[in-house]
Order: sequence, then C-alpha cells, then structure tokens
Amino acid sequence: MALLFISKVDSPEDWTRAFGKLMPELEVRVWPEAGNKADIEVALVWRPPSEALLDLPNLKFIASLGAGVDHLFRDTRLPDGVPVTRFVDDDLTAMMTEYAVLHVLACHRRLPEYLEMQPKAEWRELPQSLARERKVGVLGLGVLGGAAARKLAGFGFDVAGWSRTRKVLPGVTCFAGADGFKPFLARTEILLCLLPLTPATEGIINRETLAALPKGAAFVNLGRGGHVVEADLLAALESGRLRAAVLDVFRTEPLPPESPFWRQPRVIVTPHVASITNPESGARKVVENLARIRRGEPPLDQVDPSVGY
Amino acid sequence: MALLFISKVDSPEDWTRAFGKLMPELEVRVWPEAGNKADIEVALVWRPPSEALLDLPNLKFIASLGAGVDHLFRDTRLPDGVPVTRFVDDDLTAMMTEYAVLHVLACHRRLPEYLEMQPKAEWRELPQSLARERKVGVLGLGVLGGAAARKLAGFGFDVAGWSRTRKVLPGVTCFAGADGFKPFLARTEILLCLLPLTPATEGIINRETLAALPKGAAFVNLGRGGHVVEADLLAALESGRLRAAVLDVFRTEPLPPESPFWRQPRVIVTPHVASITNPESGARKVVENLARIRRGEPPLDQVDPSVGY
Repeated sequence: MALLFISKVDSPEDWTRAFGKLMPELEVRVWPEAGNKADIEVALVWRPPSEALLDLPNLKFIASLGAGVDHLFRDTRLPDGVPVTRFVDDDLTAMMTEYAVLHVLACHRRLPEYLEMQPKAEWRELPQSLARERKVGVLGLGVLGGAAARKLAGFGFDVAGWSRTRKVLPGVTCFAGADGFKPFLARTEILLCLLPLTPATEGIINRETLAALPKGAAFVNLGRGGHVVEADLLAALESGRLRAAVLDVFRTEPLPPESPFWRQPRVIVTPHVASITNPESGARKVVENLARIRRGEPPLDQVDPSVGY
Repeated sequence: MALLFISKVDSPEDWTRAFGKLMPELEVRVWPEAGNKADIEVALVWRPPSEALLDLPNLKFIASLGAGVDHLFRDTRLPDGVPVTRFVDDDLTAMMTEYAVLHVLACHRRLPEYLEMQPKAEWRELPQSLARERKVGVLGLGVLGGAAARKLAGFGFDVAGWSRTRKVLPGVTCFAGADGFKPFLARTEILLCLLPLTPATEGIINRETLAALPKGAAFVNLGRGGHVVEADLLAALESGRLRAAVLDVFRTEPLPPESPFWRQPRVIVTPHVASITNPESGARKVVENLARIRRGEPPLDQVDPSVGY
C-alpha cells in the first residue's frame, strides 16, 4: 500500500516521518517517482499536475495538503468518482483564528497607520473606537470563518458574517447569498476574507465591492489571492477609500518583487503564513480516512466538486 | 461644589461635557483657574504640579485620570490623608487587553520580522510555533495584567505571570516576589509588562532581566517607560538576544525624534495609546465615588501610597 505525495512547496521528509510513526506499512512515494501505480491508494497533493492523478487504478481518495481545494479544482483533471478531502484540523483552525484576530485587532487599533508614522518619528494619538463600536465583517462562515467570527465576537466587536448559504452563529449577525451581500458590506468597517476560492467567489473583492464598504474601511485577506481584483484593491488604497489592508495571499505567489503591494503605505504583506498544515496532524487525518474507507464509510472532510469546497 | 481638572494631555471639554450629563450641579474648573478653593471637593488629575493640590481645604479625594498613579506619587507633594483613586473601568481594561493580545500575537506570529522583510520584498516563511508551544509571561497580575493573562490563556498559550504578592489565576502559572522572578523570566519567550510603576519596579527591565530571558525572546511594554533601562533594551535588540519589541511607553514622552527606537529593526513604536480613559465612564466613576464618600464609605479603587499602586 502506498501514498503518492505531490507538492512543490511542502516537505516530503516531514510527511514521510509523520506517516512512518503512525502507519509504517504505508509507503510514501514522492511524485514523479510513483513506482507501481497499482499500489497507490491515496494521493496527498498541493497543485498536482493533471497527469499525476489520472491512471492510478486503486486510488481511494485524494487529500488536499491545505484547507483549500481551489488548487485542485482549478487546472487539474481529476479521476471520476474519487472522493476529494480538504484538511480540517483543530491546530490549523487555531492558527488561522489567531492570525485573523491579530490582524483585525491591528486594523482596529490602527497599527498600519502607526507603522506609517514610525519612520517619520511622528508621535500622535489617533482617535480610537471601542470594540463594541466597531463593525467587523467576516466573508465565509465555514470552519475557519466561523471560528474567527466567534473569537472576534468574544472581544466585544459588533460582528457580522456573510456566506453563500445561510448560517446561524451565536453572537454573529448572519447575512447570506447575493441579496445579503451589499447590506453586509455597507455596515462593515473591517472586512476579513476567509472564503473558499470557487468560480462564484473569484474576484469577489473588486471595485464595486470596495465601493460598497464605508469610507475608511480596512481589508484583511486570509483567503486566496484569486478573491481579489488587485488593481481595484490598489486603487481603493490609493484613493483613501480603504484605510488599510493586511494581505497574506496573492494572485501570484511568491509575490513578485515588483508588486506595488510590497511598498504600498498602510498595507501589511505576509508570505502566505496565516495557517500552516502540520504534518503530524495532517498524517493522522489521512490515516483515519484510509481506515474509514476500508470500513466502507465515507472519508471525513470530503468536498463537493459541484460547488468547489 | 466643584471639581478641579488638572491635565496637559486630556481634553477638559470632553470631561466637562461628561460631568454635565451625569451631575449638572458639579462645576468643572480647569487648572489654573481654581476659583474659590473652598468649593473644590475632588481633583481629577494627570501629572499635577505640586502646588495645585496643597491648599484645597475641602478636598475629599484625588482621582487619577489613568489606571496608573505613578505620575502622582513621583514628583507631587500630596495633601495628607486625602484618598487617591486610580481609574479602573471595564472599557479601559478591555482596550488594554485587546492591545496586549494584538501585540503578543504579533510577536508570536513574527510580525516584527515580516515587517522588516516587507520593504525588501522578501517572501520567505519563518518557522512558526503553535500557541500551546509558546510560553508567554505577564509582569503584573492586577486588574490589567490579570485580564490580559486570562485572555491570552484563551488562545492556548502557555501563560505564566509574575507579581509582587502571590496571585491565583485559573490557567495561569503564577510566580511571585524576588525568588520567583528569575524562574519566571527563564521560561518566558514573550514578555508582556503591565506592572504599576513604583520605586520597586523602576528599571525592572534591565540588562540582567533581559539576559535571564531565553535567547530570541520578545518584549511588549504597555506599562510605563520608567520600567525600562532603555540603553539595556537597545543593546539586547542589537545583539539579537531580543528578537523583537513592541513599545507603547517611554522614559520621555512624546518620544524624541532622535530616539533610536523609532528606527530600530523589529521594534514597533506606538504613541502611548494602549488604553485611553473614556471621559464618560471616567466621569461615572468619579460621581460614584463622590456619592460613596458622602455616605461615609471609602472610595472605590483607592491606592496605597506606601506601595505606590
């Protein structure tokens, strides 16, 4: 029995070690060294090339190395009828939640502006709202968005959320669907994006969306670069319509040195580090799903290819 | 009946308006326009000059405009036997807690390092610990330090605290007194200072203290500038013993433009904005204490001049 590991950004050594501890009989093969393809029962992947997954006769499921699966559905042809799972894990959720809280608090406490003042040695107190006077809006109320919204509500923020289908979260005002989008934006002073990237959410942060926010709002993107029309975001920052942004994800990663985001005032750029899949917890999930499939049960955290998440 | 307002940094208009709503019969006078001194029953002060408080025959209590009272005890001669109160308020505590969480999370998630990389367009993921693997240490476990420690424990951090007298806080390992100081420092990767400034804590962050922290620790000062021997802090940052610092308070405020802290890599400087007394809640506390004193009860949040907090 073998697992095929396919990623240019994750360390195969860390994962091989993690599987070695949990399930020594599982042989980890690193693409393109697939060996006898009939042995491969699971593929653990990040941005796999199309040809990698198509002729594996005994493939039981495809596991995404991350919480998102857009990297799988976008350009890759997938074998029919093979379940795809995304990575859902308490540690990953906790990391994302702390990054969301960090950067929503940073925008709330005007850190991007103080960082702009610091090299000028400018000592000046900026007006400050209390958390309960601050309207935070979370785009996406799945595992990650829901956890962030709840934690932010625990700071006393006036939190709303928006999702494709209606959700109910205690302490969070929930908007849904196309009709709920504009009212959600109109009340949002700090917008946090934790949406999955699908054809329906591609480019959702564009000129029209940004114009619907109150003037001086801030934007935190911990979703995907593909959610943003980057030229529209830059224009909103330059005009002052957006006061600040924190961007962890981009259309092109690594963000090219010539990108204006690197040097845009009141923008914090981090290199896609909001949440990182831990090989030990990740391997545990894969092993658990292998056992479930063997018992004839569906794998956990399976995604729906028809909606893309 | 009159209140004497003495501050060069707070707005007398905001406070006058707040008292006007709550207690119209209380006349707010702004130093040095004290009028008939016999009318004055309460002084609301920030860094008052010594002569301001000495010949007020009917002064019932002195209220600090902030949570700290070091500005009162340091250089001011105070009238004998007049109680002094500090400002304790849920909004002020919440603001301080959110600032503490913001900047401890910033150090935990290596934001000062990413900010240093950003102008160089350097896209590189730095190794990251989980919160439960991260040891945070809070200096001071009073109203503010205790609230911050509890909130940080809620993120899963391994939180310890140190205070002069022993405290018990659920989820927080409590160290106390001179004997507990070194063991507390030895295990602290992110040190948060929320101590009161007293003769005993003046200069407590010095070469010896910083050398007792693990190499690569971070320091967040939301206490007072007087807690820090600034040359020792700079040396620790320059040698790399300290990985990062967030400084909201300084020996001299406003921080002079020539201070090296403004341009020190991996240091975030903010202009003493961690928590701001809200005039409406502040006025409510003063009015409540006036009523208590009239009923013969001691005022709330009275400080002990013998220990300085």
